[in-house]
Amino acid sequence: MYNFSKPALSPGVPGLSFNFNNEKMEKNMPVTSDELKLIARTVRALSMDIVQKANSGHPGMPLGCADIASVLWTKIMNYNSEDTSWVNRDRFILSAGHGSALLYSMLHLSGYSLTLDDLKKFRQMGSLTPGHPEFRHTPGVETTTGPLGQGFANGVGMAIAENLLSGEFGDIIDHYIYAIAGDGCMMEGVTSEAASIAGHLKLGNLIYIYDSNRITIEGSTDLAFSENVGKRFESYNWHVQEIDGHNFAEIETSILEAQKVKDKPSLIIARTVIAKGSACMEGSEESHGAPLGEKEIKASKEKLGCSCETSFDVPEEVYSIFKRVKNEKKKVYDSWQMKFNSKIKNELKEKWDSFFTRPDIEKLRNHLPVFEKGSKIATRAASGKVLETLYKELPNFIGGSADLAPSTKTMVKNISESGNGKVGRILHYGVRENAMGSIQNGIAYYGGFINFSATFFVFMDYMRPAVRLAALSGLQSIYIYTHDSIFVGEDGPTHQPVEHLAVSRAIPNLNVIRPCDADETVEAWIAALARDNGPTLIVLSRQNLPVIDRTGRASAKDLVKGGYIIHDYDTHDLVILSTGSEVHLSIGAAVRLFTEKGIRTRVVSFPCWELFDKQSESYKKDILGTGNKTVVIEAGIKMGWEKYAGENAVFITVDEFGKSAPEADIADYFGFTINKIFERIVKYMA
Amino acid sequence: MYNFSKPALSPGVPGLSFNFNNEKMEKNMPVTSDELKLIARTVRALSMDIVQKANSGHPGMPLGCADIASVLWTKIMNYNSEDTSWVNRDRFILSAGHGSALLYSMLHLSGYSLTLDDLKKFRQMGSLTPGHPEFRHTPGVETTTGPLGQGFANGVGMAIAENLLSGEFGDIIDHYIYAIAGDGCMMEGVTSEAASIAGHLKLGNLIYIYDSNRITIEGSTDLAFSENVGKRFESYNWHVQEIDGHNFAEIETSILEAQKVKDKPSLIIARTVIAKGSACMEGSEESHGAPLGEKEIKASKEKLGCSCETSFDVPEEVYSIFKRVKNEKKKVYDSWQMKFNSKIKNELKEKWDSFFTRPDIEKLRNHLPVFEKGSKIATRAASGKVLETLYKELPNFIGGSADLAPSTKTMVKNISESGNGKVGRILHYGVRENAMGSIQNGIAYYGGFINFSATFFVFMDYMRPAVRLAALSGLQSIYIYTHDSIFVGEDGPTHQPVEHLAVSRAIPNLNVIRPCDADETVEAWIAALARDNGPTLIVLSRQNLPVIDRTGRASAKDLVKGGYIIHDYDTHDLVILSTGSEVHLSIGAAVRLFTEKGIRTRVVSFPCWELFDKQSESYKKDILGTGNKTVVIEAGIKMGWEKYAGENAVFITVDEFGKSAPEADIADYFGFTINKIFERIVKYMA
Repeated sequence: MYNFSKPALSPGVPGLSFNFNNEKMEKNMPVTSDELKLIARTVRALSMDIVQKANSGHPGMPLGCADIASVLWTKIMNYNSEDTSWVNRDRFILSAGHGSALLYSMLHLSGYSLTLDDLKKFRQMGSLTPGHPEFRHTPGVETTTGPLGQGFANGVGMAIAENLLSGEFGDIIDHYIYAIAGDGCMMEGVTSEAASIAGHLKLGNLIYIYDSNRITIEGSTDLAFSENVGKRFESYNWHVQEIDGHNFAEIETSILEAQKVKDKPSLIIARTVIAKGSACMEGSEESHGAPLGEKEIKASKEKLGCSCETSFDVPEEVYSIFKRVKNEKKKVYDSWQMKFNSKIKNELKEKWDSFFTRPDIEKLRNHLPVFEKGSKIATRAASGKVLETLYKELPNFIGGSADLAPSTKTMVKNISESGNGKVGRILHYGVRENAMGSIQNGIAYYGGFINFSATFFVFMDYMRPAVRLAALSGLQSIYIYTHDSIFVGEDGPTHQPVEHLAVSRAIPNLNVIRPCDADETVEAWIAALARDNGPTLIVLSRQNLPVIDRTGRASAKDLVKGGYIIHDYDTHDLVILSTGSEVHLSIGAAVRLFTEKGIRTRVVSFPCWELFDKQSESYKKDILGTGNKTVVIEAGIKMGWEKYAGENAVFITVDEFGKSAPEADIADYFGFTINKIFERIVKYMA
Repeated sequence: MYNFSKPALSPGVPGLSFNFNNEKMEKNMPVTSDELKLIARTVRALSMDIVQKANSGHPGMPLGCADIASVLWTKIMNYNSEDTSWVNRDRFILSAGHGSALLYSMLHLSGYSLTLDDLKKFRQMGSLTPGHPEFRHTPGVETTTGPLGQGFANGVGMAIAENLLSGEFGDIIDHYIYAIAGDGCMMEGVTSEAASIAGHLKLGNLIYIYDSNRITIEGSTDLAFSENVGKRFESYNWHVQEIDGHNFAEIETSILEAQKVKDKPSLIIARTVIAKGSACMEGSEESHGAPLGEKEIKASKEKLGCSCETSFDVPEEVYSIFKRVKNEKKKVYDSWQMKFNSKIKNELKEKWDSFFTRPDIEKLRNHLPVFEKGSKIATRAASGKVLETLYKELPNFIGGSADLAPSTKTMVKNISESGNGKVGRILHYGVRENAMGSIQNGIAYYGGFINFSATFFVFMDYMRPAVRLAALSGLQSIYIYTHDSIFVGEDGPTHQPVEHLAVSRAIPNLNVIRPCDADETVEAWIAALARDNGPTLIVLSRQNLPVIDRTGRASAKDLVKGGYIIHDYDTHDLVILSTGSEVHLSIGAAVRLFTEKGIRTRVVSFPCWELFDKQSESYKKDILGTGNKTVVIEAGIKMGWEKYAGENAVFITVDEFGKSAPEADIADYFGFTINKIFERIVKYMA
């Protein structure tokens, strides 16, 4: 499997000095219309063959978009297929990810490390060419797409990152973000949210081509989709053009026009025919998701004028054109390297490196806030203090909230803010959680930044598709979710997460951390910053919590082990496993149990299952003990805790929806007071 | 607590014969402008007091929308506060659910069973006035709102239901659906999706008022929201007006105008001032989510000309106006009852009753498909066969897919379909899962219909906010999720659910059923139809599965118990717990284990945890046994299974993301073949 450098902080600059050509960069490389025709025909044949060989896949979109792709990869985009992490490359996103055969065909022809053999292994176990594009898996694939609308929103994140980076380093960063999105992408709400943000921020570096073939899986878009997409995007302040998606000149001209529009994102509505070029399937929804069949492919190749004898037949002339294209693009690349070396040096180079290397955590630690033992502070507020340091110490630290910054404590003074067409390091996402998550992923795909988002924990539901993709793609997206339990109080069950800890822990490769106090909050942030192969979710309290006095106790640094003993006796009669706002209650109950009943209770602060699972078996056994009476105390559903506590443990949990009431009444009702816990355990031990 | 009749099939018609007045119904009841002013002032004072007394809540929106609400409840909407389930009542949805103090104030004044004392218990444990409106909890509350955008989309579902009902029963159904939505609702993607569908279906019965106060929690909408909302809604084919939201005449006139537009939903953009009428907080985001404070309230009441001495002071004159209003509305109601009795009789009455009573499940059972033992059929296809019966036998059965009907097998021939401005019993949602879920809830809130939605299981993530609200509100929404595991195959990890069973089971009050074959699929549908207090999720295979020969085995009807023994010996050495497509593999392995190794394996088909949990302790013990060696076999994460199997069981599960590969290779890779299971268990038993 291809091994990529870490995306979030990919170095981008190989550091080598290339021979370069100081001529004016030519955007319009000399690929003729006849050559484009030949390329598009080859791409169509290849795409049909790829899907047929796999006996599975989506040929309709690749055939419909072959003309657009041929123009993009030859005459428009700047890239170097031998340096896939070049910072100033144009990004291409296949938002309609099911059209992966098109993307793989283009990457192969353009010289990426993707052979014909790889194409022949489309959708096979372990191949470089999975059913939908996967980031970090295939050279040249910029984003994991497939769930519709995600790629669209990822591109907005990339455009924000590009904008910020060029703000920091000037015109050394001046590329575009291209995407092809289909009717399905246009219907998804995440697209609407992201488009509105992009228009608001005047992201002129976005150039999206809408493959408007008016066909969806159920049939014509007349069935469900009659809105005026162009007008809709104009309402978002986008620049909108409409073209014939099979006319090379119109494709090229419209993109060049879009490049000139600096204060608006561009949507090019390309009228296309799905399965264009096939013998009998043009315009049919049946071409969407199944191989065309040998017979149809033969007839289609005849119609296209391709060789019909063999499959995977790429004419030498096509390779030769792409070799020419590659050489031309290499000149642009070399010229950029020269420019980079002349412009980015000394202090600017140091700053650049600080963007593209991982932060020094131990150095950072010295600047992080220290909290007074015994004082009370909500973990969301403690996180807010941490953010002040991070924004100050890490110039590439950015993030924002879905219109809940005052509540999530993610506003930091004197940091540039987004708004009114300006991109700042504090982003205002508006009430758009779904796009926030996907934009955040786009920033992480882009590299160079560490970024977080913030909202109420219960609204994670709105952004779940993005969180899953971050985990799947190994992105360092950081999620701040506050108001983390029934202790939200009066806002009631619609706003009180109860199942959300469980459903977060369920996602593979997602670290879920619920700190018990301000000190653990600092450590949660450190764990999130130090993680480079996946996302971290930090779950924070609305209510004040005591800063636990660590005298004679383990340091909060033990959070890195996922679970550790925070209160104990020489021997113990009982083990409490607890997280977040319930840890101090557990300690309080333990003290009373000993004082009043002589019951010796070990309390384990258990902020992160995933980190705990990575510890040695002996460590885990040491912490959990064996054959213990165990009590789990967490203000959420009990699901999954049986793994650590056994199915016969006592669960002081919330296995129903919450209630609208003041915090104290809620605590009493659900049994989360020292008194109630004490009574429950005394009864249990009797 | 107020106990409502079941919503999905609420009778609607009390059956009593009222005295009625045959005069022409007067839409414009004689409430004067001065009276409106008095009402609005009272509502403002009341809302401030409600929030202040609770010391928690959102005063800004109620003050900003008091004028709109005053017009709606007096001069526009038809309702009978003494018959909250009247079928032809106008529906009102507070999409901006945080403004609940406004809704409760209006309901109190309009004569609903909501006393001043109830208002004083705002946001207190067990009160009728929780922080956000909760369906089935407070008389007159039509939907549970709070998570933004949900109410907006719910209304589209209601409009679809109204449209279908009037299609069936003529002009006896001719009401409107009103909503107030705020800037936050307008930003949410679910709103965009629902608005596009509503425009497509030309839902002229929808009249939405957009409370455009240009203020969000983080500050001015300039921070994140500069799109042209009116133009956007025009692009969706809505009728758009813009008014001064504090001008009674403009409010009324624009609504009357909107009523006349029959082929488009209406958006009335009401320019408002948040916290309008307050002394110093007008236009400030600080009025959004916190009490104004005694001092500000006193000053505001002075400014408004209210009595300042006491709180919760409703002038007798206001009650008297509403009494008049009530009498007027009663005439409309009575007249409708008369019309109903004269129009809906004989066969039409029988049909009506079939909409508003629960279906006779046993009768239905006789019509359901029977599958040949030993034949192979995917459970999604078996579900498709069930749907044919349901559409035929239940005239009020409706549903649709998010552009995946051919894959989810939810298209049924000869049933009216939606499309091109026509509402049919098969809905085409387009690629809009989020709105699909919320629209579906709207249909369920409305009553009279049984409705389902369908998409791939992995895309449940897109509609999770709606699923949660269905569970919280006790709605009979039915979800068909196909392509339920890694056996999706070539489409790869973006399309393969692995954590989705766990994260579905985590939601309280949601029944999650994963049938093992066609017969269990029939029973899953029956369980979903029979359930009247919450949603059911039916999880179905893409791949073919054998129809298990039940000779000598328990009937599939035992699905109703959640888990039952499907394969056993006189005694057993081992228990396998399994669901869905893994059950036949488990039986296959059990047979080999006995034949080749003499190991006696009990296999438990375990399609639904929630149903199993409701069985007696002795039944559960009988099925699971005690002290057994247990193996869990399910193609998803193991999380939560420890509850039934113990933490030391063997878990043949999928605890990572899936792979893109053909089904057989996937099965082998993850160990889901009879061979691999056999080997694993032999090793375990050794």
